[in-house]
Amino acid sequence: MNVERRQARREMKVPIAVSARHAHLSVATLKKLFGADHQLHVRTWLSQTGQFAAEETVSLVGPHGRLDHVRLMGPPRAQDQVELSRSDEIALGIDAPLRLSGDLARTPGLRVEGPAGSVTLEGGVITALRHIHAGPEDAQRLGLRHGETVGVRIDSAGRDLTFNDVVVRVAPGFHLELHLDTDEANAAGVAHGGVGEILPAAG
Amino acid sequence: MNVERRQARREMKVPIAVSARHAHLSVATLKKLFGADHQLHVRTWLSQTGQFAAEETVSLVGPHGRLDHVRLMGPPRAQDQVELSRSDEIALGIDAPLRLSGDLARTPGLRVEGPAGSVTLEGGVITALRHIHAGPEDAQRLGLRHGETVGVRIDSAGRDLTFNDVVVRVAPGFHLELHLDTDEANAAGVAHGGVGEILPAAG
Repeated sequence: MNVERRQARREMKVPIAVSARHAHLSVATLKKLFGADHQLHVRTWLSQTGQFAAEETVSLVGPHGRLDHVRLMGPPRAQDQVELSRSDEIALGIDAPLRLSGDLARTPGLRVEGPAGSVTLEGGVITALRHIHAGPEDAQRLGLRHGETVGVRIDSAGRDLTFNDVVVRVAPGFHLELHLDTDEANAAGVAHGGVGEILPAAG
Repeated sequence: MNVERRQARREMKVPIAVSARHAHLSVATLKKLFGADHQLHVRTWLSQTGQFAAEETVSLVGPHGRLDHVRLMGPPRAQDQVELSRSDEIALGIDAPLRLSGDLARTPGLRVEGPAGSVTLEGGVITALRHIHAGPEDAQRLGLRHGETVGVRIDSAGRDLTFNDVVVRVAPGFHLELHLDTDEANAAGVAHGGVGEILPAAG
């Protein structure tokens, strides 16, 4: 293909971030799990501004099983939110809906165990809808509109696929990134740090 | 769309079978796990002729974890073969290659535990390449050739995608079916009994 076309293609690349199971918890819940004066410790800063993976982990307990060493994210949020893959949910015996972060009405709960206590959440468990984060400048450059859905093509060794239903989220401070859960990354044969190609909206 | 075109589309549908982690074991391995005179008991007949899911399950043990209640398939095979999803492999701490069934050279092993003993397999663990089984008549009707790769589009509630790199396997006795592992089915939002649409070869 000619140089101009190759250039245009290169500009539609999106870096891939793979989210393993994790939880964002409230200050009140963290107190019950880790003790009254506990503060989360930063393990690694995430690419999205101000967010971090914490040193702290918890155990998640459902009707059919448990998952240990589940990473907490910080800083604390107003609402408890647990993000699982469908594989995780099958292991726990939980059926959580596909949702964007923060959309927690009518979601199931589960038990969370920490070193200083345990909490039974009444809700907050979701399977994350795959989505692209983009700052306003990247969104303009790529022709992406907040709230639309696009396709993303993944080339890998033996598991090429095209994800549709990828929701675009545009906000100041967002870093350009496709967020997949582990089921999705595994099905596509890609890992954190891989690259996808954004396709025009499916119309 | 007109009736003829709708008819053509309907004919490209393929039923979906989802394979959870499972093992095909040899008679020698089964003896060590279940005792000398043990025979596998049929739990459910699979759609592929003569194959069945057995009543019997085993535990799989890797460097990082274990998976219990892993279903055995029958009848016994000449070679031990364990089919895992990448999510399973991460839980166990094993990195198995993408392979078609039976292609077991240079594959990792793991420990298998049964009620009467345990066995350390030297190899045989694979991640199954997604594939379509078709009998000769279905293959002819759908224009599928043994060994080619095709795409399959999945429509679901919020996780539409198109799998590429789907390998076509044609043999007498094969029942038309797309075989996905649990990561792939979860990423597409489909379950056993769902339906995909075969796309022309990607060229």
